[in-house]
Amino acid sequence: MEISNGLEDVCIKNTALTFIDGEKGVLRYRGYGIKDLVEKCSYEEVSFLMLFGELPDRKELAQFTSDIQKGYALPEFTRRVISSLPDDSDALSVFETAFASLSCGEDGFVWSRENIARKAPEALGRASAVVAAAFRHMVDKEMKMPVPTDSYAGSFLNACFDGDVSRQSVTVMNRALVLYADHEVPASTTAAIVSCSTLSDMYSSIAAAVAALKGPLHGGAAEAAYAQFEDIGSPENVDSWFQKNVVEGRRRLMGFGHRVYRTYDPRMAIFKSMARELSTSAEEKRTLEIAEKLEKLGVERFSPKQIFPNTDFYSGTAFKCIGFPIHMFTALFALSRTVGWIAHMSEYIENGGRIMRPRANYTGHGPRVLQSASQK
Amino acid sequence: MEISNGLEDVCIKNTALTFIDGEKGVLRYRGYGIKDLVEKCSYEEVSFLMLFGELPDRKELAQFTSDIQKGYALPEFTRRVISSLPDDSDALSVFETAFASLSCGEDGFVWSRENIARKAPEALGRASAVVAAAFRHMVDKEMKMPVPTDSYAGSFLNACFDGDVSRQSVTVMNRALVLYADHEVPASTTAAIVSCSTLSDMYSSIAAAVAALKGPLHGGAAEAAYAQFEDIGSPENVDSWFQKNVVEGRRRLMGFGHRVYRTYDPRMAIFKSMARELSTSAEEKRTLEIAEKLEKLGVERFSPKQIFPNTDFYSGTAFKCIGFPIHMFTALFALSRTVGWIAHMSEYIENGGRIMRPRANYTGHGPRVLQSASQK
Repeated sequence: MEISNGLEDVCIKNTALTFIDGEKGVLRYRGYGIKDLVEKCSYEEVSFLMLFGELPDRKELAQFTSDIQKGYALPEFTRRVISSLPDDSDALSVFETAFASLSCGEDGFVWSRENIARKAPEALGRASAVVAAAFRHMVDKEMKMPVPTDSYAGSFLNACFDGDVSRQSVTVMNRALVLYADHEVPASTTAAIVSCSTLSDMYSSIAAAVAALKGPLHGGAAEAAYAQFEDIGSPENVDSWFQKNVVEGRRRLMGFGHRVYRTYDPRMAIFKSMARELSTSAEEKRTLEIAEKLEKLGVERFSPKQIFPNTDFYSGTAFKCIGFPIHMFTALFALSRTVGWIAHMSEYIENGGRIMRPRANYTGHGPRVLQSASQK
Repeated sequence: MEISNGLEDVCIKNTALTFIDGEKGVLRYRGYGIKDLVEKCSYEEVSFLMLFGELPDRKELAQFTSDIQKGYALPEFTRRVISSLPDDSDALSVFETAFASLSCGEDGFVWSRENIARKAPEALGRASAVVAAAFRHMVDKEMKMPVPTDSYAGSFLNACFDGDVSRQSVTVMNRALVLYADHEVPASTTAAIVSCSTLSDMYSSIAAAVAALKGPLHGGAAEAAYAQFEDIGSPENVDSWFQKNVVEGRRRLMGFGHRVYRTYDPRMAIFKSMARELSTSAEEKRTLEIAEKLEKLGVERFSPKQIFPNTDFYSGTAFKCIGFPIHMFTALFALSRTVGWIAHMSEYIENGGRIMRPRANYTGHGPRVLQSASQK
């Protein structure tokens, strides 16, 4: 049997959610260009679009927003679970554990249209509360549930930073949420789909997606890209760092390359312009300069191989300017992607998707005679 | 693009772990027939075999057993997490949450041979403690960590039942552990592999597998099969129940059919003979009689379509005789399968498996012009 290593070019579902043209660098959610969505829509609107197929009218949006807000107050037991975790827990482990705990009592969950419409906004509200709690857990502050404001992004940031949040930060957070909301079927989404294909519940399957997102090859890329900038330290070190680590050391340039894009990732340019807008302090400007110099060297070297900067190259710079430490970047990605995971699962079930049961190709021993230690 | 719905016939890896001949009903772990393994080996030996390729000698077995036993005492924070969960939590949610919590601090985990050799027995010890804790949580008893005895099965049952455990129960538990230890790449194992393909850590990826196992189409089958026997209630009702529900009602006969086997599942016969051995009370004998009558009717009707009873048809009957309630069956499956998940992940990484990144086939809207509610 031929092995599909990494499931490359294996098509696991039909989708009307996200269109990617990897050659031309095009990304659309349900037909709308990513740049338009980022500039004109709230994350709530984009979430509704992803889940239900069309942008909401005012009434639908008000109802959906209210349903999300009802999810903000985590159940007492999930708060206790989060508080029980070690002080130095990484934010993604907190997310995974909290969502696994939210699956308690969900074992009879049925993926009907009504249940999805009820549970999806709740899960989005929960995700905001959980990631805010993970952040406050990390920086050793008391847990705080988001409270309704005029935006999902604003409620989340207020819960994280005790209300000390600029209008600009809310705008940037909203845009980042939209940019990371979905990207077809990467490993995390695939894990979610594999899980729900057994008709497992929504919260469990989101936890499975978070487990996959944790890996440094997937969600960790934004953190790893930013860590490079920190490692380099100063713009004048970029050339020598690149020469020593990437050219001679064959170290992988993080934030570069993508299994689907063979050109610039269209989200990258948007994150880059946000990073430019936000970088005002001397330190922020220095980091941005490092990033831009590194991007230039990376493109010169790798573009002939169709390897270009991806969305993670500048996203960390934007998150950092909002006030998040590096170890929150992947959790912010997870927060945003929650809607993509749910939308893909719903679509998979709705299209009659079967339980995932691939095969493995046996290459081991033929039949052999048993003699165990306990018999010897 | 052609859709591989359910990944049927897609081969995701090479494996030297488990050989299945679905036509002939053959199952071997690393070349050893399942019947031999069940009769002659402890779960610890089989686990060592799966993880490291050969059965252990006495010295290796002693070291491995000691390493497992070191995992029995859960960290204090995981105990607090479990205690925080609602009283009516299902055992699999407890398992998933506990393992997600154990991933805290594992974010730098590297899948090296040494780390796997160190972490795998720890995870097996943790699994025993977590499932025992989930059981005691369910029946409202104080948490109790397993303590070392001469067997993994015995330590687990002692922790569950306060030491009130017969020799026969230990034997049966050990056999059940061996029978469910691995079965190639069903959805749960696939979820684990998808997760670890991003180089996510072992505990997180096991939690992802548990998420997938939760679904009624996967791990829930043993519970669903046994629920049928309870629903039927008495041997004289089998014919009419079958006629009404399966023949006329087109209800799916649970514990029948398998994506790989086109004949009898070789594990089924072993579970059946264990169920026969164990069923001594009037109630147990009645349940067994119901099961055997139902099996006969099922085989008559479905064998022409190559649908036969699978491993889950009788496993519940055996678990029930040991003293577990129906809602523990899937968690017992998970306990056993933990080693299979770890072994498949280790093998995937060792063979240089890539990050799982399948594709989706876009069937949605072409480009469209955006007008959002907030602009209207």
